[in-house]
Amino acid sequence: MEHIHNLRHSTAHLLAAAVLELFPGTKPTIGPVIDNGFYYDFDFAEPISEKDLGRIDQKMRELVKKWDGFHKSEVSAEEALKKVQGNEYKEELIKELAEKNEPISFYQSGNFEDLCRGGHVDNPKEELKYFKLLSIAGAYWRGSEKNKMLTRIYGVAFESKEALEEHLAMLEEAKKRDHRKLGKELELFFIDEMVGKGLVMWLPKGTIVRDQIEELAKKKEKEAGYLRVATPHIAREELYITSGHLPYYKDSMYPEMKMDDGTYYLKGMNCPHHHRMFVHRPRSYKEMPVRFAEYGMCYRYELSGTLAGLLRVRAMAMNDAHIYTTKAQIKQEFAAVLKLVIDYFKIFKLENYWFRLSKWDPKHTEKYINEPENWEYAQNVIREILQEMKLPFKEVDDEAAFYGPKVDVQFKSIVGREETMSTIQLDFAAKKRFGLSYIDEEGKENTDVFVIHRAPLSTQERFLAFLLEHYAGAFPTWLAPVQVSVLPVSDKFNEYAQKVYQELLKNDIRVEINEENKTLGAKIRESTLQKVPYMIIIGATEVSDSSVSIRTREGKDLGKSSIIEFIQTVKNTIEKYE
Amino acid sequence: MEHIHNLRHSTAHLLAAAVLELFPGTKPTIGPVIDNGFYYDFDFAEPISEKDLGRIDQKMRELVKKWDGFHKSEVSAEEALKKVQGNEYKEELIKELAEKNEPISFYQSGNFEDLCRGGHVDNPKEELKYFKLLSIAGAYWRGSEKNKMLTRIYGVAFESKEALEEHLAMLEEAKKRDHRKLGKELELFFIDEMVGKGLVMWLPKGTIVRDQIEELAKKKEKEAGYLRVATPHIAREELYITSGHLPYYKDSMYPEMKMDDGTYYLKGMNCPHHHRMFVHRPRSYKEMPVRFAEYGMCYRYELSGTLAGLLRVRAMAMNDAHIYTTKAQIKQEFAAVLKLVIDYFKIFKLENYWFRLSKWDPKHTEKYINEPENWEYAQNVIREILQEMKLPFKEVDDEAAFYGPKVDVQFKSIVGREETMSTIQLDFAAKKRFGLSYIDEEGKENTDVFVIHRAPLSTQERFLAFLLEHYAGAFPTWLAPVQVSVLPVSDKFNEYAQKVYQELLKNDIRVEINEENKTLGAKIRESTLQKVPYMIIIGATEVSDSSVSIRTREGKDLGKSSIIEFIQTVKNTIEKYE
Repeated sequence: MEHIHNLRHSTAHLLAAAVLELFPGTKPTIGPVIDNGFYYDFDFAEPISEKDLGRIDQKMRELVKKWDGFHKSEVSAEEALKKVQGNEYKEELIKELAEKNEPISFYQSGNFEDLCRGGHVDNPKEELKYFKLLSIAGAYWRGSEKNKMLTRIYGVAFESKEALEEHLAMLEEAKKRDHRKLGKELELFFIDEMVGKGLVMWLPKGTIVRDQIEELAKKKEKEAGYLRVATPHIAREELYITSGHLPYYKDSMYPEMKMDDGTYYLKGMNCPHHHRMFVHRPRSYKEMPVRFAEYGMCYRYELSGTLAGLLRVRAMAMNDAHIYTTKAQIKQEFAAVLKLVIDYFKIFKLENYWFRLSKWDPKHTEKYINEPENWEYAQNVIREILQEMKLPFKEVDDEAAFYGPKVDVQFKSIVGREETMSTIQLDFAAKKRFGLSYIDEEGKENTDVFVIHRAPLSTQERFLAFLLEHYAGAFPTWLAPVQVSVLPVSDKFNEYAQKVYQELLKNDIRVEINEENKTLGAKIRESTLQKVPYMIIIGATEVSDSSVSIRTREGKDLGKSSIIEFIQTVKNTIEKYE
Repeated sequence: MEHIHNLRHSTAHLLAAAVLELFPGTKPTIGPVIDNGFYYDFDFAEPISEKDLGRIDQKMRELVKKWDGFHKSEVSAEEALKKVQGNEYKEELIKELAEKNEPISFYQSGNFEDLCRGGHVDNPKEELKYFKLLSIAGAYWRGSEKNKMLTRIYGVAFESKEALEEHLAMLEEAKKRDHRKLGKELELFFIDEMVGKGLVMWLPKGTIVRDQIEELAKKKEKEAGYLRVATPHIAREELYITSGHLPYYKDSMYPEMKMDDGTYYLKGMNCPHHHRMFVHRPRSYKEMPVRFAEYGMCYRYELSGTLAGLLRVRAMAMNDAHIYTTKAQIKQEFAAVLKLVIDYFKIFKLENYWFRLSKWDPKHTEKYINEPENWEYAQNVIREILQEMKLPFKEVDDEAAFYGPKVDVQFKSIVGREETMSTIQLDFAAKKRFGLSYIDEEGKENTDVFVIHRAPLSTQERFLAFLLEHYAGAFPTWLAPVQVSVLPVSDKFNEYAQKVYQELLKNDIRVEINEENKTLGAKIRESTLQKVPYMIIIGATEVSDSSVSIRTREGKDLGKSSIIEFIQTVKNTIEKYE
């Protein structure tokens, strides 16, 4: 790992060198290594565009020929400030190093020298070959909107030609699978500036997919003994003071609304509403555990500039539930949630996942709710479950939430990105804050109520972005907005085509008919682009023997069958979540 | 009508007279006639309570014996002011009359004299007998929160003992059917002060009823060619400026939220979001009409003091849809909506309804969008539909919305209250504001797009309040949160009872089992109070012949049947919306 890190870091130097050659008045700032590559932020005198990346790349390859190494010089703060004179960004960095009494070093290669902590390859002219500049973007100096907007150049770098090519191919694939591109082509959703950024407008076809996922959750959660509830999207300040979200979480919440009876907020999370529902009347041990489920909308205030498609939004429908359990029930309930998670992933044919158990650190008790016995008990119980269920997992110390241990579900996406799909958290804090309790078998009040927070299917927004990428837009039949297209070869067959269409409709199959005056080839092309799983072709022979000919979006000819048979095939496919 | 109005008005005088006798320092203000009775607002020196109503009633009956008529005197403003000296409310009223140059009159009966326009019975001591004081409430002087809070006393009055008794019986019935009382007893919903007033927390059982209604709407709307969409609950100010809701409707909207990219509001209505969805890409004549449906949440800023149960809330889920039609399609689409309305009412077994067609007034063109031809065309078309469908309707002039004619669906509730359940509006204004258009068969843009706004099932909140009252909480089986209770006579039969329970569960019947150590009588009582439609009694004979004995919540014994037969009965009942 160290060598590739050094290689990417060295390539960032090379990028800065090339930029300074081509655009002399530019002020370089910082250029860290990131996944697969690096970036460098510049303050350009004149704006540049992505068209300039080719020239910069060329210049990099030209300059590197003379780079025989990275030559270090350690200097005093005064000398350092002299070297970077006129570059207020580097000046700021040097002053900070000086304040902290840290050594200040520069590294030189060719004509380019940069303030740097070190960590380079030994032989740049041989090793800095397999890189590519990808894109430019705006970025605030030090990430703060109060600072100047700089220009960030992104690049990737690898140790071999093959590794670079493989990565670029994956990027190409990712671009094809981009959920924003597919969302538009398949008419699933759009974002409307007039309605607002980060707010998804779900078009009819997107609403179908969304509803299918919600229906699945409702069904599975019903089987698992959850009770569905519906809570408002807003609440008074008092609720969030009770939960502790205010004042700590205030920056992530929407601005307050002052009403005649107090201050209201759009909800940032569903738990406080559910907790209030749990305590609205006394609970008996006979009811425990109580499981409240809701596809609850959460609102998060993100800066408008950071919002992107479905992945970074300001309002998200969470596949939420809260399970109120006694201590003795923690194991059974946590295991049931894990089982549900795995069930879902099987249904969606998702495979590359593993679990991460985040624990507290008894040495840092100040960071955690102080119930050592509960921490040890719960962590052991969760570990046991993961082991008994033979699930792949890692343990990490000192990464728990302050209120309890958690299990993250980690995914490797189809284009190689690692992400946390969902989290199962155990909560020791809610019981005190909300006065959770139940009456035990002896009629006494027991306040040891634990809460499991869980959202296996993430948010509708995030999960749909993931699925769009995963399936490249070709949803399995049960999820597809249109499951079957009926395509008459010409108008002569429209009557029979209508009959077939009506028959499918009656059987609750999502079907469309294309009676336009177009060639069959054009009709097939349209349905294929819309990624409709089944196309029914209707011509003279089908009319004469009352059959249908079936073709898939992959171009496979499934031959002829009767209407009834075909309906049964589609229904079976849907029932099996295929 | 005039006599009963005069009678109620006269009784209000009598009430004020009795109050002044019993509570000398009290300032009377105004006392108008309302449905079935009257109220009078007083500024009491000391607060009174409902316990005092008995004494006041007695005093009224005592005083009226000496009332032989209402004796009028017309006076100048100065004299009038002298008469009411010290009562700033009456002073204010007198000054307003004087400013408008209106006559100022007083009416005297017994020792009591009141500022009054007239309209009394001739013979109070004979006629003012069949009245009853009902309740007291707080009310701001002239309805403004900036003014002093007064005490309002409500009463009813009739021309005969029978009419009074019938009305009181109905009030008694209404109290039993009060949706707030039933909502609590049946654990359907609650309002939580910490979450906020006017915000409904739907408990599991309430969520089931709500979801059933939503499922029905989804099914019916799908059959009727609607497309479901899902839009955010917030939007930027720009959207509401475009729609015209801002600034005119601002007082009814929630306070603004200033974000980094503009000002946002919680949505007061769903139409602007749907309009933006319609225009997000060009539309072809082949798509028209486009019907977007959504159970969309609307937010309305009501003063906290005016909120009450489900009938007056701050957030409501509307059974909303917007239909975008060409002019030629108006008739067909309006008729289809009316048909849907009637279908729904049949399903819910609702009968006492009629329609009210509100038209513009060509003499008041300033109040309406100026498209005389469209007004005449649309009104004629709607009248034709109502006639062709043989629906009971009334026409009212000068009652339309400014943007088009509408049809209100009027209901007489089971306790005699008239209310508007839903409204179907035609909208000529949206096309211009949102640039609605479609490409016609010649490839030309046609901007004559009409919008039908409709919400046949009202809002979830209002409709459920209505249904709770209508069914007195005994929902038909298809809507009931619990459809069947399994009641083993003793623990000996729990095993077989569990088998029956599981069988029903598997068949998607909402079933509960009561295995508690209680008598059968107690179990039946609990299920009856919870208004569960079917109870299954399981004892020795049922176990021995593998049957179930069935009882209804009305106490009817349906005898024995096999499990399979019973499941089929319940399923048929549900399918028929019974």
